[in-house]
Amino acid sequence: MPGPTLTDIARAAEVSTATVSHALNGTGRLGGATRRRVRETATALGYGIRRTAPRTRTLGIAVTTFPTAWNYTEIAYFSRVVTAATSAAHERGYALTALPAARAGDDSWHTLAVDGMLIMDSPRGDPMVTALRARGIPLVFDGAPGDPHAGDHWVDNDHEATTREVLDHLAASGARRIALQSGNGDEHYARTVTAAYTTWCAEHGADPLVVPFDVTDAEGKAFDALLRGPDRADAVYAAYDPGGRQLLAAAARLALRVPGDLRVVCASEDPGYALTRPPVTTVTLAPERTARAAVALLVDLVEGRAGPASETAQRGPVVVPAALVPRDSSRAQPAAG
Amino acid sequence: MPGPTLTDIARAAEVSTATVSHALNGTGRLGGATRRRVRETATALGYGIRRTAPRTRTLGIAVTTFPTAWNYTEIAYFSRVVTAATSAAHERGYALTALPAARAGDDSWHTLAVDGMLIMDSPRGDPMVTALRARGIPLVFDGAPGDPHAGDHWVDNDHEATTREVLDHLAASGARRIALQSGNGDEHYARTVTAAYTTWCAEHGADPLVVPFDVTDAEGKAFDALLRGPDRADAVYAAYDPGGRQLLAAAARLALRVPGDLRVVCASEDPGYALTRPPVTTVTLAPERTARAAVALLVDLVEGRAGPASETAQRGPVVVPAALVPRDSSRAQPAAG
Repeated sequence: MPGPTLTDIARAAEVSTATVSHALNGTGRLGGATRRRVRETATALGYGIRRTAPRTRTLGIAVTTFPTAWNYTEIAYFSRVVTAATSAAHERGYALTALPAARAGDDSWHTLAVDGMLIMDSPRGDPMVTALRARGIPLVFDGAPGDPHAGDHWVDNDHEATTREVLDHLAASGARRIALQSGNGDEHYARTVTAAYTTWCAEHGADPLVVPFDVTDAEGKAFDALLRGPDRADAVYAAYDPGGRQLLAAAARLALRVPGDLRVVCASEDPGYALTRPPVTTVTLAPERTARAAVALLVDLVEGRAGPASETAQRGPVVVPAALVPRDSSRAQPAAG
Repeated sequence: MPGPTLTDIARAAEVSTATVSHALNGTGRLGGATRRRVRETATALGYGIRRTAPRTRTLGIAVTTFPTAWNYTEIAYFSRVVTAATSAAHERGYALTALPAARAGDDSWHTLAVDGMLIMDSPRGDPMVTALRARGIPLVFDGAPGDPHAGDHWVDNDHEATTREVLDHLAASGARRIALQSGNGDEHYARTVTAAYTTWCAEHGADPLVVPFDVTDAEGKAFDALLRGPDRADAVYAAYDPGGRQLLAAAARLALRVPGDLRVVCASEDPGYALTRPPVTTVTLAPERTARAAVALLVDLVEGRAGPASETAQRGPVVVPAALVPRDSSRAQPAAG
C-alpha cells in the first residue's frame, strides 16, 4: 500500500500542494502553525510510514528529556552510550545519527531518515515518540519510556534496587541523614530513583531531603541550606554525573570533611572520580552494555527478527546490572553529630 | 535553478523513469551496473546538488581509507574524533551521522542526506569524495586528502615533524637500528610518516626497515624476522594504535627486554599504554582538538561563512600540534649489541 500523495495531504489539510511540499521539505516561508498542521495531517494519513520508505541503513539516537540546547554528550553516561552504540551499529553495517537535544523540540521527526531510533530517557508525553510511533519507525528505549505501550522494547538498569543498595551502603557507613540529589525531569530514571528513596526513607523513619539537580550549579550552592545547621545532612546520593563534584565544592566551601562530616555517592561513568580528593564512590550504570543490548534489539526490530507485542513478553525489557564502586568518599565513619 | 527531473535522467541514461526512481531510492530489483549508471548520470546532471536540497542540519563523518567491514570506532583515535565531533556538532545544533567503513565502498553517497561531510584519512582516488564533490556537498578532511583540490579544507597534524621528533628521541635513547611499522593504505598519514622515516634514515646513513601494519596480528608475528639475529632492530616506531601492544607481545615471545633490548614508541590515544609493562611512550595526535576544529570549519562552510578557493589561502589547512608522551618503553639505554 503506497503512502498518501501530496494531493491527498493538500486536500485533507485544506492547503495547496505547494504548501504541502514546502511543509514536508522544510522549505518556503510557511508559518510554524501551518507547517505543523500539514505535517500532522501527513502523519495521520500515513505519510512516511516505513512500508514505502527506502532503507537508509541508518539508526538514530537522541536524549529527549529536555528538548533544549543542552549538550548531553558532555555527560559521560550519554557520551559513552553514543560511542558504544556507534560501534555496535557499525558492526551491523548501520550508520548512527546522534541528534542534538534541541531537535527533540522541533518537528523534524516527521521526516527524519532513519530505519530505527534509540531514545534515551524519554519523558511522559514525548512528542518525538508520538511522531515516530505514527510513522511506524521501530523504537528501542534506553531507560523505560515515560509512556510505555504494549510491545515497547527497552533496556534499563534496576534503578530501584540500585538506589536501595546505595542508601543501605550509606547507612552502613554511619550516615543518619541521607539526602538525594535527583532530576526534575519527567523521565523514568528521575521518578524511579526519587520514589525508591522516598520509600526507603519511610521504611527507616527518616524525612526525605531531595535537592533538585541543576547542571549549571558547578559550585553546588543548591546544597548550602541542606548542609548547614544542627540537622544538616551527613550523606548525599547524587543521581547525576556532575553531582559528586558539586558536593565536593560545597563541602570545601562549608569546611565539611568528606567523608568525616559528609559521605558522598554519585551515579557517574566519569573515571575522574577515582582521582578527586577524596575519590568519590560511584554507581556505574554500565552504558556500554546498555548501548550494545539496545542496538542489537533495534537492529532485530528493523530487520524483522524481533516480534510485535505478542512476543515481547518473552523478550521483556533487558535489564543491565548496575554496580557500586566504593571509594573513600563513603568510607565507614562514626555518625556525625 | 532546479535539479534535473526523473524524465531528464531517464532520457540521458536511456532507461525508464521507473528505473530511475528505483535506482535513486534504492528500491526494486535492478542490477548493480544499471543502478550505478543511473546514479552517475543523475550526479552528472546535477541531481542532489544542494541548491535544491532541503537543509538536513546533519553532518556526516566517515573513515574512507579501507572501504571494508573493519570497525574504525575500535581504534581510540577514531572513536575519540567521532565523540568530540558529535559534541561539537550538537553545540552548533547539528546532528552527526557516523558511517560504517564499508559504506565507503558502496554508492549510497549519491543520496546521503547530509549538509556537509567530515572525511578521515581519505585515500587517493576516493570514490566517495568524487561523488560528494559532484553533489556540491561541503567537505572537510581530517588528514590531508589523497587528491587535494584547490579550495579543499583540512585539519591535520604535522606528521613529518612528529615522525622526525620520534626518531630523534629514539636515537637519543641509544637506538641504532630503528624500524617503522607503517600503514599499507594510500592515505596521506601512512605516506607522510613513511616518507619522513625514509628521509631521516638516509640523512643518518641507516637502512630503512618498514613493517606493514596488520590489525589482525595481535601477537606481532610480523616483527619476528626484524627482531632476530645480529642485525636485529633495537627500536620500533609503531604508527598505528595497536602496534605498541603487538610489539610488547613480540618482545615477550622473543625474550627481549623493553627498553633494554628494544625501545618502543607508538602513535596512540589509548590511555591503557600508561598501564602496560613497561608503560609505552606514545605520540598523541590530539583528536579532540582536530575534531572540534574540523566541525567548526565544516559548519562555517555549510552556512556560507568560509569562502571558496580564493579565500582558502588565508584559512589554509589547520595544523593541530601532536605531542610525544615519554614513558619507560623508550627510556635512555646504552645501545644494544
